[in-house]
Amino acid sequence: MQVNGTPYRSIWRDGTGAVRVIDQRWLPHEFRVVELASCAEAAEAIRDMWVRGAPLIGATAAHGVALAMTEDPSDTSLAQACATLAATRPTAVNLRWALDAMRAALAPLPPARRAEAAFARAAEIADEDVAINAAIGDHGLPLIRALATRNPGRPVNILTHCNAGWLATVDWGTATAPIYRAVGEGIPVHVWVDETRPRNQGAQLTAWEMASAGIPHTLIVDNAGGHLMQRGEVDMVITGTDRTTARGDVANKIGTYLKALAAHDCGVPFYVALPSPTIDWSLKDGLAEIPIEERSGAEVTHVWGRAADGTLGAVRICPEATRGGNPAFDVTPARLVTALITERGICPATPEGLAGLFPERAAVLRAG
Amino acid sequence: MQVNGTPYRSIWRDGTGAVRVIDQRWLPHEFRVVELASCAEAAEAIRDMWVRGAPLIGATAAHGVALAMTEDPSDTSLAQACATLAATRPTAVNLRWALDAMRAALAPLPPARRAEAAFARAAEIADEDVAINAAIGDHGLPLIRALATRNPGRPVNILTHCNAGWLATVDWGTATAPIYRAVGEGIPVHVWVDETRPRNQGAQLTAWEMASAGIPHTLIVDNAGGHLMQRGEVDMVITGTDRTTARGDVANKIGTYLKALAAHDCGVPFYVALPSPTIDWSLKDGLAEIPIEERSGAEVTHVWGRAADGTLGAVRICPEATRGGNPAFDVTPARLVTALITERGICPATPEGLAGLFPERAAVLRAG
Repeated sequence: MQVNGTPYRSIWRDGTGAVRVIDQRWLPHEFRVVELASCAEAAEAIRDMWVRGAPLIGATAAHGVALAMTEDPSDTSLAQACATLAATRPTAVNLRWALDAMRAALAPLPPARRAEAAFARAAEIADEDVAINAAIGDHGLPLIRALATRNPGRPVNILTHCNAGWLATVDWGTATAPIYRAVGEGIPVHVWVDETRPRNQGAQLTAWEMASAGIPHTLIVDNAGGHLMQRGEVDMVITGTDRTTARGDVANKIGTYLKALAAHDCGVPFYVALPSPTIDWSLKDGLAEIPIEERSGAEVTHVWGRAADGTLGAVRICPEATRGGNPAFDVTPARLVTALITERGICPATPEGLAGLFPERAAVLRAG
Repeated sequence: MQVNGTPYRSIWRDGTGAVRVIDQRWLPHEFRVVELASCAEAAEAIRDMWVRGAPLIGATAAHGVALAMTEDPSDTSLAQACATLAATRPTAVNLRWALDAMRAALAPLPPARRAEAAFARAAEIADEDVAINAAIGDHGLPLIRALATRNPGRPVNILTHCNAGWLATVDWGTATAPIYRAVGEGIPVHVWVDETRPRNQGAQLTAWEMASAGIPHTLIVDNAGGHLMQRGEVDMVITGTDRTTARGDVANKIGTYLKALAAHDCGVPFYVALPSPTIDWSLKDGLAEIPIEERSGAEVTHVWGRAADGTLGAVRICPEATRGGNPAFDVTPARLVTALITERGICPATPEGLAGLFPERAAVLRAG
């Protein structure tokens, strides 16, 4: 997407071959591009959330493996790189998927050929992600168009949680791809942007994306979505996901479950947009089987932003004696999901729905 | 309740007869007591949330009328004071209830006797509130005791939203009264404190109350409660309410509805503690009939707290171009409320339940 008139992806190699990413910790206040110079830096970038979002985590891990191969292309190095990167974040399955893909491509090769092949495979993973998200946009667009047709002259009100935008992927985003496509077609859209405490990815990233693209939007606290749905002010919800089970349970940023409950209660369609690498075909029951990352309580007790004097920093919002609890994701049961929007089309959040779109994976499951 | 060993109410007259309140905007970072020297200051204190919480708003309004009577005890002054105070906040019904009570006590009196009578009636309203909340504590205590008995050796995990603590009332609080009583009896309790964006009354006030009283508690973001309920980590939810309809619909701080949905989905009991002055017997359908205050978007785009250098201030969390939407309350339909805890006992959130506890009000309704 464009930033001040220049097209960007969220991860790329520059003219010198250096791997570059947007250090998203500074958004929306500063747009900083940094180099990932080593596998260790790639791991740090994922762990400390310079980059985040399941698809971008996968693409960054792939580039991390490639950087490791330039440092030391041995089997030991490959195994170590994959282990280090796999340990950075526990919930997003794309991370594991990307590392498996890199290992499969590199392990059979002689070490001398691994670095070049690794960068080529990492670039493929990034390009595939862009194509996948563009296809999600194509499939999601008719849903928005239909809502626009139903209420002519009124913008389609779309609520989204966290950031499943182009910053969370390599480009286009998952939840935002249909929105960008709709705006491109001239369909009037207004986005309710959930703040998404504790890290405020909605306020910092999704609002920045919407503002950068000139899309009408309103920032709301995470508490407000249910009320807006009760009042008919939300036409649809679209979120992303960090991991989806074979039966359609969805792990996504903490608070997604609450919005899904409200949408269900108010008869508002609740869509989850996902690239197929976020499907964990090995799991069924998301609540029982998906590990949920517990992050630092400091993310809850402090809020980061720009002070009146222009400085960036955090303020403590509670007593010194109070500790914060910080589960980072929750699981939305498939029964609350109206449909899944994938790169191959839209399907119900059921085993049959997913198997219908991805029969080759479902066949492997049946055989396994 | 005690603050550093000294017993306080949230509003009182000191030895000189001055009306004093805790300026709650500075909590938890500073404990500041201020004088309300005029009716205009009482109105400002309510409007700008030096004081907040439906019962305390009512008690403050009553004292505001008394202050007006010391300035000018005429009929015109009485009418103006009530009009000014009534316009400060639209959702809490206690405000209107307290003003009606003051008007009823003062209008029949000759102006020369009004000031003294007004302070006496305001003191009664404050004392009644303390007695009401103590009774809510008595009735709510057995619910907590029963949960403690069910899981011996494990603390009872109670989730609360916003601040329905002693700071929101004159003393004891509504939702917190049963908690303070349980702790007083030695029942092990752990409180999940919802941050309660945008104004963070949970982080700033409830966490401060819990820390001051030495009650084990964990601050969580508003997004987290559903996840905790899914995992069995919440035994009960207790919230307050700003207005309750005759059939048991509950208007409370924005986000309450989402927690009620999650509690319902997870089989967690969801209790609402309320003094009867928050019941609006004239209303049935909360969603259609209760006006919801829309506050400044700046409360959403900015977060206030203490910076690392000790200064208090706000940080902006989103792009300059992004505006905030800020509905301050939502309505939880009675069907999601397990029971109401009132000063007369516990009842189902139904017209019959409320009429059973308050037959004299229900009789008036039937006659009217």
